Parts: sequence; structure tokens; C-alpha cells
Amino acid sequence: MDNKRRISRVVRIGRVPIGGRFPVAIQSMVKAKTSNVPAALGQIRKLQSAGCQIVRLAVKDLADARALKKIKQNCRIPVVADIHFNWRLGMEAIEAGVDKIRLNPGNIYKKEEVVALARAAKLKGIPIRVGVNSGSVRRKNAGLMKNKVQAQEMVKSALEYIKLLEGAGMRDIVVSLKASDIRQTVIAYRLMAERCNYPFHLGVTATGPLFSGVIKSSIAIGSLLLEGIGDTIRISLTDEPQQEIKAAKGILQALGLGHFGPQIISCPTCGRCEVDLVRLVNDFEKKLGAAQASGRGKFPKELEVALMGCVVNGPGEAAEADLGVAFGKKEGILFKNGKPVRKVSFRNCITELLKEIRGKKR
Amino acid sequence: MDNKRRISRVVRIGRVPIGGRFPVAIQSMVKAKTSNVPAALGQIRKLQSAGCQIVRLAVKDLADARALKKIKQNCRIPVVADIHFNWRLGMEAIEAGVDKIRLNPGNIYKKEEVVALARAAKLKGIPIRVGVNSGSVRRKNAGLMKNKVQAQEMVKSALEYIKLLEGAGMRDIVVSLKASDIRQTVIAYRLMAERCNYPFHLGVTATGPLFSGVIKSSIAIGSLLLEGIGDTIRISLTDEPQQEIKAAKGILQALGLGHFGPQIISCPTCGRCEVDLVRLVNDFEKKLGAAQASGRGKFPKELEVALMGCVVNGPGEAAEADLGVAFGKKEGILFKNGKPVRKVSFRNCITELLKEIRGKKR
Repeated sequence: MDNKRRISRVVRIGRVPIGGRFPVAIQSMVKAKTSNVPAALGQIRKLQSAGCQIVRLAVKDLADARALKKIKQNCRIPVVADIHFNWRLGMEAIEAGVDKIRLNPGNIYKKEEVVALARAAKLKGIPIRVGVNSGSVRRKNAGLMKNKVQAQEMVKSALEYIKLLEGAGMRDIVVSLKASDIRQTVIAYRLMAERCNYPFHLGVTATGPLFSGVIKSSIAIGSLLLEGIGDTIRISLTDEPQQEIKAAKGILQALGLGHFGPQIISCPTCGRCEVDLVRLVNDFEKKLGAAQASGRGKFPKELEVALMGCVVNGPGEAAEADLGVAFGKKEGILFKNGKPVRKVSFRNCITELLKEIRGKKR
Repeated sequence: MDNKRRISRVVRIGRVPIGGRFPVAIQSMVKAKTSNVPAALGQIRKLQSAGCQIVRLAVKDLADARALKKIKQNCRIPVVADIHFNWRLGMEAIEAGVDKIRLNPGNIYKKEEVVALARAAKLKGIPIRVGVNSGSVRRKNAGLMKNKVQAQEMVKSALEYIKLLEGAGMRDIVVSLKASDIRQTVIAYRLMAERCNYPFHLGVTATGPLFSGVIKSSIAIGSLLLEGIGDTIRISLTDEPQQEIKAAKGILQALGLGHFGPQIISCPTCGRCEVDLVRLVNDFEKKLGAAQASGRGKFPKELEVALMGCVVNGPGEAAEADLGVAFGKKEGILFKNGKPVRKVSFRNCITELLKEIRGKKR
């Protein structure tokens, strides 16, 4: 678990390579109707500036498929077309020049259709994601199956599909196996990791609203990444698309797999704490975010700042972080690179920390 | 992973048994000063009504230790005293009749002190938590060690301490091994799981503010619980104590290890969705919460409600949930126990769902 990663085949989604030893890429999906090009492009811009690296769009009809060309022309990140039911929409998307298509084995499965799509994609050098969803796997007695059996069904569905694609000469394949159940999702990816070396797109489907959705995604995607499984992630949330990026960044940062700005280590406080640390941490988080967003000053992406309320773990955590303050009564000791440097008052703490961060080189 | 649990020794924290096959208990900590009895009791009441099952309080001085008696008398959930540095405060806490004491091997480690505490606790039938924190482990070159080595240090520290306690006849032991680093935390608990059969208190220390704190805790605690490791959990957040309970419930519910009310399964929406599902789900979540909090009507604790935006995974997820709506244009199909029952309009959907939930028996 100490940095051992499942090394998969490298597949290029436009200019973003995934798999191999490449960083785990963050992706999301546009929630606007694709044929509403201004709305879709507006969302893509927001996603992109939040840190989204690959964007997917639903292709529900011919108008959506045809809009892809214009979207692709006006978009700096790779575009993925999400195809269901109608294979011809996939052909249109390939024609429009998207960077990847996603097919759902649950609703496009006729051999001749899959082969035609694979050949057309291969000709244009476009990879295909085999996107299995528990909610659309074709099966009997779905409700009666247990997690493991359901996960096996998902893996079986993906493997059969891969066989069809490979038969048509397609090798640029990405696999996803999403269920709304966490255990089922984790089991499915683990099983699949033993059966192929294609890169994985990780996700939990239909996780629900923000708070519970972040929890479910963190557990499933986090525990797979902890095992070294996963090459690109999409956090599904019934909320603003930007929240999906925030959560994705949070997961990667927590695991040391990505760095998107200073990370705050802070204690929950208890009866030992003599300053209002909760308020201080929230203020610091806000001011740090605002300072970074302003673009003024350079903020190191890889930095740990510890804000601790007492002497129990305070000096230890503050010394292990790049920068830290361990509070006593009203004032704290500022640590830099493991060493106590000077006293800081509660009142000036945030200003002093921001100054230190701005001046800090790594 | 399919429900295989590490079966540990059962230890009773007052009237709450942990370990064995008992449900994973949720705990938190008071952030007010313990000697401020009204403030501490106020927080305990809030925590308790949020669903906290065990509460811990810091014991910083003699005033705190003496306040424990009054707190214990006015508190319906088991009370744990958090002891650091000064072993005599532990003796006072035991004397005050708390339900467990937590000792930190990093700052109370003299043999005669540990033995005295173990004997006094044993006499009163009070269990002891060996609470190792990465930030207060005694060691050299802390900053230079890698995750695995640091985790091994934590385990070593816990095992030596357990030996001292066992030597004094103490067997009612709970173990925690918290680091602010997720990988280190997970490795430490996994190693410890092979070395003893005492129940585990899971936690990540100093996780920081709400959003990132929930992510870190979900990954570490979630992946351990997914492996069957863990008997009681505490989510540390630099935020209101009630948020810790909400996050703890979210983690247990996501893993099927606890049921605290209807769980919402909902899609993130995309260009296929023709209703404002994000708004609907947020409204539904709020109204459901308000209806449950009002105490009017019976709400089943174990119920899945799926709210899905289109026909791709909509019917599948809606049919797998206890109750679900798969939307098309403006209206949806309501599913009950896997079967489509009737159409519902977007406008009436929440009212209809709440009616169904109120009437639903399981």
C-alpha cells in the first residue's frame, strides 16, 4: 500500500494520458443539455478553472451529437461523449472528433454495432471506455443478488465487451464498473484488476447529495486508490459540477496523489484548547482560498500547514508539517520545517502564516 | 470483504458494549472545558441527541477531574476521561466513576504509574484505551520516517503499553492508533489487527476543517471498516461536534453498518436529465430531515430512496431501492419494492415520497 500502484496500459484521452505511472486525472460531466452549446461551454469553463482535466457530455440525440464539434473547437480540455442505447450517436460523436467515447454494455451490445463503433474509433485513434453501471447491467433477479455476485456480473459484462472491442482491433480501452453500493463497486474493480491491464476510470454511481455523496465516493474511490487501483476519477454528486472537482482534489490530496494547494492539518479541539481554533481554521481556510484565487503571490501547491490547539499533539504535528502553530494560552509557537521559530499571537496568526506561505519555497 | 469482520474481545464502556459482533459505536468529544460543567453538559446533550453513543472529555487539571463526577451523574451516555501527562488525573477520573479512561503512551509511560492506573481501573471495572497518536509518539528522527516505519513505531508503542497493562491484570483494553496521515493510520491498524484481539477505536487525528476532514476520515476509517476492522469510531473535525456525528453516521450508513434514516440514492444529472433533480434532491433531503426531527410519523431507519434523472440507470436504481422515482420529461415513474407502481409529477414528487415513507413498513 506504500505507493504500490497497479501499472496499467497507457491510454491517451486527447492530450491527457491516463494509466501507467501518469497522475490520476480528474474528470467530471456537464449537466446542461449538450445541444445548448453556450450553456455547455459555460459549465466546461467553470469545471476547467476548478481543475477538471477531462470533461464528458451526454449525447441523447442527433442535436447533441452535432453540437460536439462546436464544443470540441471551443474547449481546451479533452471531450468525452457519453453514448447509450443508440450506437449511431456514437458514430456521430466519433465523426465530430471527440477524444473518447463511453459505451454502456447494458444498452449497446449487439456485436455488429459494437464492432462498427470500435472500427470507426480505431481509425480516428479515439479510445473507448467500457462503462458498466450496476443500474443498467442486463440480468435476471437483480434484486436478489448479493454484492459479490453482482460485482462478478459487472466484471463479466465488461470482459465480454472488451473481447468484442479487441476482436475489432481496439486496444485503447478504459474500464469503469460503477455501482451505487460501495462494497459492490470496490469488489468489482478489485476483481477486474486481476483480469485485465486496461486503465480504470473510478466512480461510484448515484451517490446522492453532497455530504453523503462525498462520504460514499471517498470510501470507495479512496480505498481503491489506497491499493494502487485507479487511473482517472469522477466523483458523482447531485450538486454543482465544481463540487465534484473539489471532492476529487480532496481525495487525491488526502492520499498524497495530487497537490492542489496548502493542506490544513488541524485538531478537532477539546477541553484543553484555550483559543477559538475552529474559528481560526475556518478563517484561515477562507483567506487562503481567496488569496490563491486572487492570483497575487505564489502559493506552493505542496505544503502542509498544521494548526493545533494544545501541547498534546500540537508540537508533534506542527513539527511534522512544513509550517505549523501549536497554541497554548492566547499565543502559539510557530514551527518551520520541523523547528520552533518564534511566538505568534492568536490575533496575528493568519497574517503571519500567509506571509510565511507566500515566502516559502519548496 | 463481504461482511467478514475481525471479531475482537468484547469490552463494555458503561452500558455500551464494543467489539465482538456488536454494532460499531459512534463517539465524539466535548470541546468545552470540562470544569465548565453547564457548558460541557450542554454539548453532551447536543451530541447525544445527534446520535453520539459514547462521549469523551479532556482532563487537563484537578478541576476537570473533579467535574467528571457531576457530569457523569447528569449524563445518559458513557463518559470517557482523556488523560495526558499527569497520571494522578487518571486516578482522580477513575475515582470520579467514569466509564473508561484513555491514556496516551506518548506522555504517560512510567511503569509504576501505568501499573497503578491499571490496578485502580481494574478494581472499579473500568476499561482503558491505549490511545497512540502519531503526533505524540516518543521517537527519534520523526520527520525522516516513512509511513510504514512510523506505523510500526505506533504499533510497537501500543504493544509495549498493553504488556504493562496486562501485567497488572487489566484485560478490558481498547486500542487506537491515530495519525494525521491516512496511509500511516490504515497501515498501523492493519498491523495491529494481526497482533492482538482487543477492540479498536478508529480515528484519524487532526484531519482539519469539515470538507477535507470528512474526506480523510471517510477514506481511512471507511477502508478499514470495509476490511472488517473497527469497533467504535470517532471522526475528528475542526468544526461543531454534531458534524462529527453526522459524518460518522454517513460512513456507517454508506457501508451498511448502521441505519439512521432513509438513504438517498440520486444521480449527478447530465444532459439527459429534463427535470431540476439537484433542486428536488436537496429539497427532499431537507424536508425528510425536518419531518424526522419533528417526531411526527414513523420513519423507517433502514430504507433506500432512489431519485434518478433519466432512463439510463433510472429504472434499474429505482427498482433496486425500496422506493424510487425514475424521471422522464416532467414526470416520473414511482417504484415500490422493485416494481413500477404509478406516475408522479415533478411537482408532487416529494409529497408523494414522504407519504410512501410514512406508510412504509419494514
